[in-house]
Amino acid sequence: MAVDSRFYEHLGPVSLSEIVTLTGASYSGNGVVQIMDVAASRSAGRGEVCYYEGTKPPAPGDINPEASACFVTQKFADALPESVAALIVALPRYAHYIASRSLVRYRNWSEQAGQTEPTNVHESAKVSPGAVIGAGAAIGDRTIIGPNAVIGPGVQIGRDCEIGANASIQSALIGNYVKVYSGARIGESGFGVMPGPDGATDAPQFGRVILQDHVTVGSNSCVDRGAFDDTIIGEHTKIDNLCQIAHNVVVGRNVLMASFAGISGTVTIGDGVMLGGRVGIADHVQVGDGAQIAASAGVFREIPAGETWGGTPAKPLRQWMKEIAWINRQVESGKKK
Amino acid sequence: MAVDSRFYEHLGPVSLSEIVTLTGASYSGNGVVQIMDVAASRSAGRGEVCYYEGTKPPAPGDINPEASACFVTQKFADALPESVAALIVALPRYAHYIASRSLVRYRNWSEQAGQTEPTNVHESAKVSPGAVIGAGAAIGDRTIIGPNAVIGPGVQIGRDCEIGANASIQSALIGNYVKVYSGARIGESGFGVMPGPDGATDAPQFGRVILQDHVTVGSNSCVDRGAFDDTIIGEHTKIDNLCQIAHNVVVGRNVLMASFAGISGTVTIGDGVMLGGRVGIADHVQVGDGAQIAASAGVFREIPAGETWGGTPAKPLRQWMKEIAWINRQVESGKKK
Amino acid sequence: MAVDSRFYEHLGPVSLSEIVTLTGASYSGNGVVQIMDVAASRSAGRGEVCYYEGTKPPAPGDINPEASACFVTQKFADALPESVAALIVALPRYAHYIASRSLVRYRNWSEQAGQTEPTNVHESAKVSPGAVIGAGAAIGDRTIIGPNAVIGPGVQIGRDCEIGANASIQSALIGNYVKVYSGARIGESGFGVMPGPDGATDAPQFGRVILQDHVTVGSNSCVDRGAFDDTIIGEHTKIDNLCQIAHNVVVGRNVLMASFAGISGTVTIGDGVMLGGRVGIADHVQVGDGAQIAASAGVFREIPAGETWGGTPAKPLRQWMKEIAWINRQVESGKKK
Repeated sequence: MAVDSRFYEHLGPVSLSEIVTLTGASYSGNGVVQIMDVAASRSAGRGEVCYYEGTKPPAPGDINPEASACFVTQKFADALPESVAALIVALPRYAHYIASRSLVRYRNWSEQAGQTEPTNVHESAKVSPGAVIGAGAAIGDRTIIGPNAVIGPGVQIGRDCEIGANASIQSALIGNYVKVYSGARIGESGFGVMPGPDGATDAPQFGRVILQDHVTVGSNSCVDRGAFDDTIIGEHTKIDNLCQIAHNVVVGRNVLMASFAGISGTVTIGDGVMLGGRVGIADHVQVGDGAQIAASAGVFREIPAGETWGGTPAKPLRQWMKEIAWINRQVESGKKK
Repeated sequence: MAVDSRFYEHLGPVSLSEIVTLTGASYSGNGVVQIMDVAASRSAGRGEVCYYEGTKPPAPGDINPEASACFVTQKFADALPESVAALIVALPRYAHYIASRSLVRYRNWSEQAGQTEPTNVHESAKVSPGAVIGAGAAIGDRTIIGPNAVIGPGVQIGRDCEIGANASIQSALIGNYVKVYSGARIGESGFGVMPGPDGATDAPQFGRVILQDHVTVGSNSCVDRGAFDDTIIGEHTKIDNLCQIAHNVVVGRNVLMASFAGISGTVTIGDGVMLGGRVGIADHVQVGDGAQIAASAGVFREIPAGETWGGTPAKPLRQWMKEIAWINRQVESGKKK
Repeated sequence: MAVDSRFYEHLGPVSLSEIVTLTGASYSGNGVVQIMDVAASRSAGRGEVCYYEGTKPPAPGDINPEASACFVTQKFADALPESVAALIVALPRYAHYIASRSLVRYRNWSEQAGQTEPTNVHESAKVSPGAVIGAGAAIGDRTIIGPNAVIGPGVQIGRDCEIGANASIQSALIGNYVKVYSGARIGESGFGVMPGPDGATDAPQFGRVILQDHVTVGSNSCVDRGAFDDTIIGEHTKIDNLCQIAHNVVVGRNVLMASFAGISGTVTIGDGVMLGGRVGIADHVQVGDGAQIAASAGVFREIPAGETWGGTPAKPLRQWMKEIAWINRQVESGKKK
């Protein structure tokens, strides 16, 4: 899947041999292949370069045979599909990042400093004093942008939305009737850290945020953009203040999320789920439709649809309550003896 | 209690028969009654419309007999005071919201886009570059408004206050010597979600925030305005960074609240209470004067005055400590066998 | 250690007898001594005034004999080094605060309202629309300041940094390749509360924040400045969204901190430490190099280097897991009986 050109400027093409030079990769194949874009290994296509950094050999599907090239360690170089050029390096994700800098450039805030393109703001929309609208952004009918809010380059906002004071939005597609309250941060880089040659290094984040119709995001909450794919919040989902939604999270419809929810990377939450305050969910966990999670729970594994869980580590609520009562009885009865 | 006209423009009067038409309510009484305002059912007066959405019949006092009209389900229509016109609908709170849109309009940020009224800023106050001051706001002697802060329409701020960079304040009355640090959000809509015909819907929030003298609110903390009543923070109360105070919370004087405090809707906290970091308190809970709550506690029921509690669910600290020690001993002794 | 004049304007000298008058201190020595600055008692030098508010008599080293004067209660007045003038008061820290107001003035946001000095922004740096740069701030090569960000007076930012939209930075020295994402708050006053004559009072915070090279601070996270010393984040340390780093915290290199980390005052964290989501660490705790702390842990005591801990209160992870499994077995087996 190509990177969205509304948010990333494509700088290429760059030949494979240039990429080999830039990254110091070991490669002996055809260097004239032209690379246009970066991608994740599962969805990379022709003209796209990806990376593989698993601890086991790639399984079928892990690397799309359509990919033009893939950074990989020596250990797994032979396990790539034959159609994919293996670029052998010590730090595949880091090499991919180095390559990405010559292929795509994030249209970040600097783009706005010299902003000349007219933006597409509907005449019935209201842009408050101090709000900054990036090049190529579009704002629909009757939408209100609060004072000192920042709408990044290329962001698309539908109609009848309300964006609060001092909120900021980037790399995002926003539906109709969406509310983003004051100070919320939509589309910032997520927390992706990779080893680099000198220490911990931020992995670039090429994806987007999609807020569907009637979503509300509370004050000072954060919804990070995806690493390659999208972070998606479904229709009518309501998010309280000071919540954190990490990259690649997919939240269903009519989900209620009380404050301090912490949804780690690549979590999937079904429709109609209810989260009490301060619920944390570990990365890659799936929560089934209609599940309910009690306040303060720390969820480390899948919650089946319709169940109610609580505690840390979370378990079915009845079981947690029973354990609490049992401990209480043991200690009380010990006291009496 | 009427909605504060500094924050809400009154659009009415609207006749009861018009409201019946707008909401599709079933009503057979006198439609010429004029409605001026929305209100909560306990405090609604003449010319005000309220709603009742309990699961049991309303008790005495739940619905003020002075109210002109009340949205209610068929089931409890006969339980209203005789003096109150019963507007029968399937979703009372939602119907009340629909009615509210023709009665009051939030003076939100859009008001500032065309701001022409002079605001009342004392000559000794300092408004930093980029700060936006809404129509009708007042700012007292020597108060400093930080750069890119946003003061909403009608907000009243006393003297010798400091409002930090990028902070935003709306629907709020603020005393003297108050500090609101950078990025704090005062007076945003709280997390009130009601069922609507198409899914979860935001319940409108008509109340205010009151910060009394010498209150300090930390960076990126949030204090939501009340649903109908006020959210109140008492004198000399000090709130750390990244805390969440929900709608209708009442906090006493000299309360110390370390970071990540999460105070749910309609909680009452007495004078001199001390909260360690990351304390969560469930909605409607009361915490007595002088209580102390250990860091990380999750409080689900009342804490009597002067007691010290901890754990999740919270209990008296000694009991929690005893349970922790007991479990530790059991597992340790098991290991030795 | 003197207060950094880039962030605090020195207003003195003020004679000791003037300070005695301002604070109502009891003092019978030489009042003509000139005081220039405030300081912490351990590092106060000639011409500096400090305070001592311990519950035990000061130990050797607690009060630098070089200090010119020290506010102290009657009880410990005789325990000061003989070379230090004892200013006897009921509330030493509060008296020190009163004295500080005639000695130093925070160059806060108000300084920017009348900003006339040219700031030192490198020609290759990009300052986005709406960003406010304080007097005396310096911004290095190719650094990008996002829209509506606020850079306070005297702040030094190196090269190749990215400061996000609506972020604010004050009292801080920032290295190269540093990223501060949207809405982050660097250098605000920390949560220091002292008793004052009328109730809880904010203790002034005279220190700084130092972000070393390659540090990343996530969206809406907060790093408070030190009380007297500095809050320091080491090279390549990566901090996720919505984290709180309190005053005087020292974080090592290559530390990874997932969202909702809460690091209380004066905590020390070694190199290469990894914190899961929502880890809280109580004040003054030390975490050794390479330690790992599981998500949701509440840490109340020292964690030795290289260990993995979890739970609340935190303990070695294996022990916590064992306790969880044991409780589960007890309650399960009880069910079967």
